[in-house]
Amino acid sequence: MKSTFDCIVIGSGIAGMTAAIYLKRANVDVLLLDNSSPGGVLNKVRIIENYPGYINISGPDLAYKVFEQVNNLNINVTYGKVMDIEDHYVITDIGKYEAKYIIIATGRQATKINNLNLENMSYCVLCDANLYKDKVVALITDDNIQDVDYLSSICKKVILVSNKITVDKANIINSKVLNNLVIADNKVNSIIADEEEHPIDGVFVSLGYTPASDFLKNIKTENGYVLVDSNMQTNIDYVYACGDVIKKNVYQVTTAVGEAATAAISVKNRLKSN
Amino acid sequence: MKSTFDCIVIGSGIAGMTAAIYLKRANVDVLLLDNSSPGGVLNKVRIIENYPGYINISGPDLAYKVFEQVNNLNINVTYGKVMDIEDHYVITDIGKYEAKYIIIATGRQATKINNLNLENMSYCVLCDANLYKDKVVALITDDNIQDVDYLSSICKKVILVSNKITVDKANIINSKVLNNLVIADNKVNSIIADEEEHPIDGVFVSLGYTPASDFLKNIKTENGYVLVDSNMQTNIDYVYACGDVIKKNVYQVTTAVGEAATAAISVKNRLKSN
Repeated sequence: MKSTFDCIVIGSGIAGMTAAIYLKRANVDVLLLDNSSPGGVLNKVRIIENYPGYINISGPDLAYKVFEQVNNLNINVTYGKVMDIEDHYVITDIGKYEAKYIIIATGRQATKINNLNLENMSYCVLCDANLYKDKVVALITDDNIQDVDYLSSICKKVILVSNKITVDKANIINSKVLNNLVIADNKVNSIIADEEEHPIDGVFVSLGYTPASDFLKNIKTENGYVLVDSNMQTNIDYVYACGDVIKKNVYQVTTAVGEAATAAISVKNRLKSN
Repeated sequence: MKSTFDCIVIGSGIAGMTAAIYLKRANVDVLLLDNSSPGGVLNKVRIIENYPGYINISGPDLAYKVFEQVNNLNINVTYGKVMDIEDHYVITDIGKYEAKYIIIATGRQATKINNLNLENMSYCVLCDANLYKDKVVALITDDNIQDVDYLSSICKKVILVSNKITVDKANIINSKVLNNLVIADNKVNSIIADEEEHPIDGVFVSLGYTPASDFLKNIKTENGYVLVDSNMQTNIDYVYACGDVIKKNVYQVTTAVGEAATAAISVKNRLKSN
């Protein structure tokens, strides 16, 4: 494969794939680059009910459908771990690629509890609260008051297990909270809090996120989130960003695809005026 | 039906429906209000190839699928023409509704040529250029240089019929250009320009848009487009806006759904803190 492109998109989650689709349809020579299989965080989402076009769809199914679009357009896709971006070069563990423009769409990862991904466990309150309408849930969080409010307005009862966590977050992530969850058949059935066992329908975990931006050296970030303007441009002239890796108000599939379209069209417009 | 709601969404295109879906899933008492059938401008789009989740889908099909989601969530939908917004009241031709918050999602309309909607005629260059890759098209425009550039980078040949139009736009919209298009079987087969007949594969019309904002009296606009901040809030504290009616960089389904989610979550957050 050649090593020079008009645009390289780093990350093949929903944002990266959408940007690549827009670019390719605009006749831009694009490379989509990722170090894992397409879909990003979608691959870990059991059910999506708020993406327009599907009453409900699993995350992997949506990811697969968008990857079909990528393939249908014959978009170049390569797997490699990006180590650095330097002077229009993307340096990966499998080689160096050059591009006039670069779009960062590497997303973010939720802090997990022992990598647990149980049937009735969610790492996204905004996405999944409605699945537990009028039900009893536990919310494991350290400081996210917004999530507490949101869940309380939808569920019958929210058992907050925040106090225990603020005591020693590191310790709890490793074992303490896990010990408090009564798990069977890949489901959490109850939670032990205040020395009592409370039956629950589901458990939400809101322990923060880590944006995948640590390989970016000269790009301005805030708490790890890449700062962009309304064109999705970063502080580096030829570098754009979109999706969950950027600092923004709402982290959803809907917002990611909108930012991706904007980033792609911005790059297309820049290419034309060169 | 009752007449007081937490939030009223005006306009049931893709933006309005998406906002209503997010609000209802967040347990917000929402009314979706429009003066025509759901789907808005989507109902006039023959094929969409850049919406993540579908390799291709017709506009009416996508609109129907999203309306299914609206129905599935038992969202209140009412038909009525909005005349005014005044002090938390939405005044329509069928009655007055009150809401704590209002989201405007009334979209915009492309300037049509005699309301023509032929098989190989498009009113959106960014959406449909790729359908005419390496083909010959005509572009009827007065001043959109961006569309000229975009089409030229994708199509084999673009016949620009701008000069004729700038002479007398009103006149041309009524008949002149129409007379220059050789139409048969619901398709444009050629265009007469510079006194010669040029066979074409398709024709693009880019004569501007009119945002549906003329009923808004106290809300700040620019060329008719509603001005919003990053939370989609207008200059009126309780009024938000999203989709094609707002001033922004990229007018696409992808961007509309992102803005709609952001507007809805902003309203939800405001409701909680009241």
